[in-house]
Amino acid sequence: MTDIRLPAGVRDFLPRAAARRRGLAERVLGLFEAWGYQRIITPVYECADVLERGLGDAGRAAAIRFVEPGSGEVVALRPDFTPQVARIAATRLGDVDGALRLCYEGAVHRLAGGVGQREVLQAGVELIGAGAPDGDVEMLAVAAAVLGAIGVDVVETRLDIGHGALARAVLGQVEGDAHDQLHGALARKDRAGVARAAAVLPAAWRPLAEALPRLWGSPADVLAAARALAWPAEVTAALDELTAALAASRDVIDPALHARITVDLGEVRGFDYYTGLRIAGYARGAGDAVLRGGRYDALVARYGRDAPAIGLAVDIEAIAAAQRAAEIAPPTAPAVLVIGERGEAMRAAAMLRAQGVRAAVDLGGAGDRAAYARALGFTSVVEAREVLAGTTRST
Amino acid sequence: MTDIRLPAGVRDFLPRAAARRRGLAERVLGLFEAWGYQRIITPVYECADVLERGLGDAGRAAAIRFVEPGSGEVVALRPDFTPQVARIAATRLGDVDGALRLCYEGAVHRLAGGVGQREVLQAGVELIGAGAPDGDVEMLAVAAAVLGAIGVDVVETRLDIGHGALARAVLGQVEGDAHDQLHGALARKDRAGVARAAAVLPAAWRPLAEALPRLWGSPADVLAAARALAWPAEVTAALDELTAALAASRDVIDPALHARITVDLGEVRGFDYYTGLRIAGYARGAGDAVLRGGRYDALVARYGRDAPAIGLAVDIEAIAAAQRAAEIAPPTAPAVLVIGERGEAMRAAAMLRAQGVRAAVDLGGAGDRAAYARALGFTSVVEAREVLAGTTRST
Repeated sequence: MTDIRLPAGVRDFLPRAAARRRGLAERVLGLFEAWGYQRIITPVYECADVLERGLGDAGRAAAIRFVEPGSGEVVALRPDFTPQVARIAATRLGDVDGALRLCYEGAVHRLAGGVGQREVLQAGVELIGAGAPDGDVEMLAVAAAVLGAIGVDVVETRLDIGHGALARAVLGQVEGDAHDQLHGALARKDRAGVARAAAVLPAAWRPLAEALPRLWGSPADVLAAARALAWPAEVTAALDELTAALAASRDVIDPALHARITVDLGEVRGFDYYTGLRIAGYARGAGDAVLRGGRYDALVARYGRDAPAIGLAVDIEAIAAAQRAAEIAPPTAPAVLVIGERGEAMRAAAMLRAQGVRAAVDLGGAGDRAAYARALGFTSVVEAREVLAGTTRST
Repeated sequence: MTDIRLPAGVRDFLPRAAARRRGLAERVLGLFEAWGYQRIITPVYECADVLERGLGDAGRAAAIRFVEPGSGEVVALRPDFTPQVARIAATRLGDVDGALRLCYEGAVHRLAGGVGQREVLQAGVELIGAGAPDGDVEMLAVAAAVLGAIGVDVVETRLDIGHGALARAVLGQVEGDAHDQLHGALARKDRAGVARAAAVLPAAWRPLAEALPRLWGSPADVLAAARALAWPAEVTAALDELTAALAASRDVIDPALHARITVDLGEVRGFDYYTGLRIAGYARGAGDAVLRGGRYDALVARYGRDAPAIGLAVDIEAIAAAQRAAEIAPPTAPAVLVIGERGEAMRAAAMLRAQGVRAAVDLGGAGDRAAYARALGFTSVVEAREVLAGTTRST
């Protein structure tokens, strides 16, 4: 017999770990619904060609494809929910005249080099049909609300915003290997590498490229530094857009968190369908961003509806890591183990359930009942007769 | 460009449909948790050889396999949660001395001939380490509680129970094609076909085989008819087990539903790992059973822990169909569309949310705002100024 093992990059969540992830997913979804986002359910896999319309190069490289044996079609596990939501917004909800707010939750699957998590639990929102700045302000506020809802002290969190226009303008000046070298150096924030790769650029663009890895920090400083450079008009417009969104968001974001917003105008990593504002949320103890998103005004059109859009996805596992770092315990509910004669225990457990208490009948077999109750997280052990007599005493 | 289409057998759920399915899944999981079942999360795919240890022939034929490109391993989308739960019970929870109660929710994927749903939303429970009759009684009670919790009138539901021992004893007398013919005729409840296929059996077994398709109906009648036949000892023991479970379950099942229990001792369809009691729940309007389960005392041992076990899985889509047939509307929550100057509308929506009301800012763009609000299910449209002034008036 072969080993009992799991494939690389997927895992099981046992009761305590699952309770934390479910609690987080439900809290985040409840928040999205409070903001008027409506939940949809999309399939785990789709026709590869349809899904890939809505993926950038990175997303396509990450997609796990296979032949669906029933139909012979090439399908792909979704590496990202956004193309699915864009497809639905453009097709089955295509006749809704006005902004759509949709949210979702579930697993995405991504090839992540040789190692790393391939199955990732996400919850996210998409706001389709809302341009900048209003849509941007709302998404910043939703991101801030998520950071405020995960139980981690606000001073341990940070909202980082950016705009793809600057790097896109610079990278638009080169092609082929030179493009890839510059992109790689920017992704690594490798200043020396950027300077080397920028040598091939027209003279006027070199200082712009070299500035990118430094355009990171407090919003006022970074925006002033960016504005001091000789950008083309579309970048100036992007800086105006960002400035406006930041100012308007002051009204709807917790001031303690607003004061901790940072701006990163040189970020080039992630899915390459973002066309405007980019958002990333961080919390201490999470190895990666706990949420990521941005504006993708060209994506929904790939499915047949010309609509601006912005969204974000929350990484449930990253928040779980931040909660562990902050020593936040997973949620628990009182649960009672009912002991005694079997018929009595079943009736007593039913009485407790009717009172809203989780109750399980002890079916015996455990050598050490106290150890068993502890291992399974029962908060008390009660005698059936005492429950039935109304004289419950926890032990 | 290719068509925007979905693969055969998968679908999207738009907000109203998703709300019904989520509401159902949460209600069923809440019920499982009330009975002391602890939720776990398992991966969408697993190594095919590991998963297949816990699948019967039907499950193996239904599994969608592919090569995971990162590792080159052959993996399979889970067609069933039970082998995953059995694996976890035998390995990571293998050192818990005593009964384990675990529950889960999510999609399973099954090749279902050329047509039919391949992605199925399920919620289920597994009770591991509890033999008959106590485990059987609990699982019957959980099944009855599910039927009582789906909003459909009890007279539109039915709990059907059986035991695999009878058909197994009969089918154990033949091999090869003759076995398959008899199995096929039993699965179709084709009495003439069973009589023809039974001709190859030893004389004493023919009346037993021919009786199987008729052993269906009220518990008292069917059990009496079965006991009148000359079964081997293990079948008599199985009939005793079933009689005991039915009697004990009278205390913990709603009497109206208990009176509607039927017994089917000839059923052979479904996953072939069941070793004892089988359970199926039906509701009017659902094309298939809304829940199915049974005892599988040999399965957990395939992962290294010798433990009796019983479980059931609820088909969320089948319950949704029964709710539609019963004209039960999907759950809705009041949701307010806030109109007016953008900054005011954002503040007003935040005020409403703080009061527990779902609130979205109208971002404009809809030609007909009333039609837009209706299409998205907003239950009222309010002026931001009126909310801020505390004089809200719904329109």
